[in-house]
Amino acid sequence: MSETELLSKITARAKRAGLAQGGGVVTGIGDDCAIFRQKGSSRDLVFTADMMHEGVHFTWDEAPEDVGWKALARSLSDCAAMGAKPLFALVSLAAPADAASWIDGFYDGFFKLARKHGVVLAGGDLSATQRISCDVTVCGEVPRGKAMLRSSARTGERVCVSGALGKAALSLDTRGRFLPTPRVELGLALRASGVRCAMDLSDGLSMDLARLCAASDCGALIDDVPIAKGASLRHALHGGEDYELLFTLPAKAKLPRGSVVIGTVTKSAVLFRGELLKPEGWDHFR
Amino acid sequence: MSETELLSKITARAKRAGLAQGGGVVTGIGDDCAIFRQKGSSRDLVFTADMMHEGVHFTWDEAPEDVGWKALARSLSDCAAMGAKPLFALVSLAAPADAASWIDGFYDGFFKLARKHGVVLAGGDLSATQRISCDVTVCGEVPRGKAMLRSSARTGERVCVSGALGKAALSLDTRGRFLPTPRVELGLALRASGVRCAMDLSDGLSMDLARLCAASDCGALIDDVPIAKGASLRHALHGGEDYELLFTLPAKAKLPRGSVVIGTVTKSAVLFRGELLKPEGWDHFR
Repeated sequence: MSETELLSKITARAKRAGLAQGGGVVTGIGDDCAIFRQKGSSRDLVFTADMMHEGVHFTWDEAPEDVGWKALARSLSDCAAMGAKPLFALVSLAAPADAASWIDGFYDGFFKLARKHGVVLAGGDLSATQRISCDVTVCGEVPRGKAMLRSSARTGERVCVSGALGKAALSLDTRGRFLPTPRVELGLALRASGVRCAMDLSDGLSMDLARLCAASDCGALIDDVPIAKGASLRHALHGGEDYELLFTLPAKAKLPRGSVVIGTVTKSAVLFRGELLKPEGWDHFR
Repeated sequence: MSETELLSKITARAKRAGLAQGGGVVTGIGDDCAIFRQKGSSRDLVFTADMMHEGVHFTWDEAPEDVGWKALARSLSDCAAMGAKPLFALVSLAAPADAASWIDGFYDGFFKLARKHGVVLAGGDLSATQRISCDVTVCGEVPRGKAMLRSSARTGERVCVSGALGKAALSLDTRGRFLPTPRVELGLALRASGVRCAMDLSDGLSMDLARLCAASDCGALIDDVPIAKGASLRHALHGGEDYELLFTLPAKAKLPRGSVVIGTVTKSAVLFRGELLKPEGWDHFR
C-alpha cells in the first residue's frame, strides 16, 4: 500500500464515522494544513503536524541544530503554502535519556528559525526512547476564507515554483548540507496578491504536482523547470524536501521576484515536455 | 537530568527567546494544555500533544485497537483537565510499511473513542519506520478565561480525585488490560460548577500532586486515597496512567458523584498521613 492509498483509506474511515469535518473544522485531511474556523472570528486558523525520525529523515551524525531547524521548517512550509502567518508550535520530542546535549542542539536550531518568524513554543511532549523522533505541530492564521488550497487551480492559470529545484536531493547524493528556507513571507504575499492555489514541495515536483492536479481535478503542461546549481533534471523533477512553493498564478496576478513560470494548468493529464510526468517522488510506504 | 529539569530548561530557553507567550498564546508550557485566545472570540482554545512509543508505552503484542484508543485518551484527558470540550485531533503515526493491518486496528480504537466525543480527525502525518510511534494533538474549547489550571489551587480547598487509583499500575504488574476513560464530561461539569484548579493523573499521584503544588505554590495534606480493587497503596500513590482527574474543590462547590476527597490544600509541603510524600511516579528521563 502506498502512502497515498493509506491516506485515502484513513480519510474514508473518518468520513464514514462522520468525523472528517465539523466542530469548526472546515477543511480536513488532504491539504497542507487543516483549517479551523471559530465562531465570530475574522480569521481562520490552520494546523499542520510533521514528524521526523532518526534513520528515515536524518541520522545521528547530522548536526542536531540542523534537525531542530528542519523539524520546524517543514511545518512552517505547510503554513506558507496556505498563505498563513505562523503563530505557535507544539514540539513532541523523543530522545535517549542521556542525549541532553543533542536535545540542546535541537532547540538551538528550532529557536533560531522560530525567532525569525516569532513562533511561540506553546507546549508539546517529551519521551525517553532509544532512537530520536519528533513531531512539530504549527498553528497559523489567515483571513477568513482566504487560505490558498491545493484544490483551487483553474484552467489557464500559469504553474509556478518559488525557486530552483533539486537542492535537497543533490545534498542527499553528495552528503552535503541543505537547510530549507520556509517561504513564509512569499506565501503571505501570494495570498494577498490573489493567488488561490498553492502547496509546498515536500515529496518532489512530480509527486506533489500530481496531488495538486488530483485535488483541483485538472492537468498541467510543464515546459521546463528551474534546476538548482549542480543538480540534475531528475533531482529537480523527483527530489523531495526542497520546500519551495508550487502555485498557480491567475492572469491578473504578478509573478513575484524569484519565482518562475514552469507551465500552464490544463484540463487533464500532467505532461512534461509533451510526455506523461509520472509521480516518482518520495512515498514513505512504497 | 530528569524530565522536570529538562522541561524547565526548555521553558527557560523559550522565555529568553521571548517565545514562551504572545501571538495569542496566553498560557504556554507547564499546564496540561496550552491556551490560545483569538481576538474577538468568547472561547479560548486549548492544545495538547501526547506521544506513544513501541517499547516504552506499549508493545507489539498489545492489541492495536487498545493503542489507538489510549493514544487519543491521553490527549482527551488533558482537555478534560482544563474543563474543555474536545473538537479535533491531528494524528502523526509512524509504523512499518508492511503494518497495514496493525494501522487498521489502531484507527479502529482511535475512532471508537473519537466517536464518543465527536472528535474530528483533521489531519496529521504518516511515516514508515521500523518501530511504531504516534503523536496525537487535540484542540478543545472552553469559555474565555475559564480553563481550569494547575496553578489555581487555594489554601483550604479540598483535594479530590475522580475515582479509585492504581488500576493502570496493577494492570502493568499483572499483564492485564486497562483502557483509561478520559474524564471529559466530568471536566466540563467541574469547570461549570466553579472548580478552578485541576490536572490529570498521568504520571502517578505523588508526582502529579507535587507538580500541582509547585504550580500553585501551595502544599497538601493527604489523609487517604481510594485504591482500585486488587491494587496496592503503592500502585495508587505512585502508579501512572490512571487518567483520573486531580482537582481542588472550593468550599461552595459540591463534590460530584464518584469523586473522593483525599485531603486539603495547605500552605506548603505535601504530606501523606503526616509523612512527606516524595514524588516517585514516572519520569521518562530518570
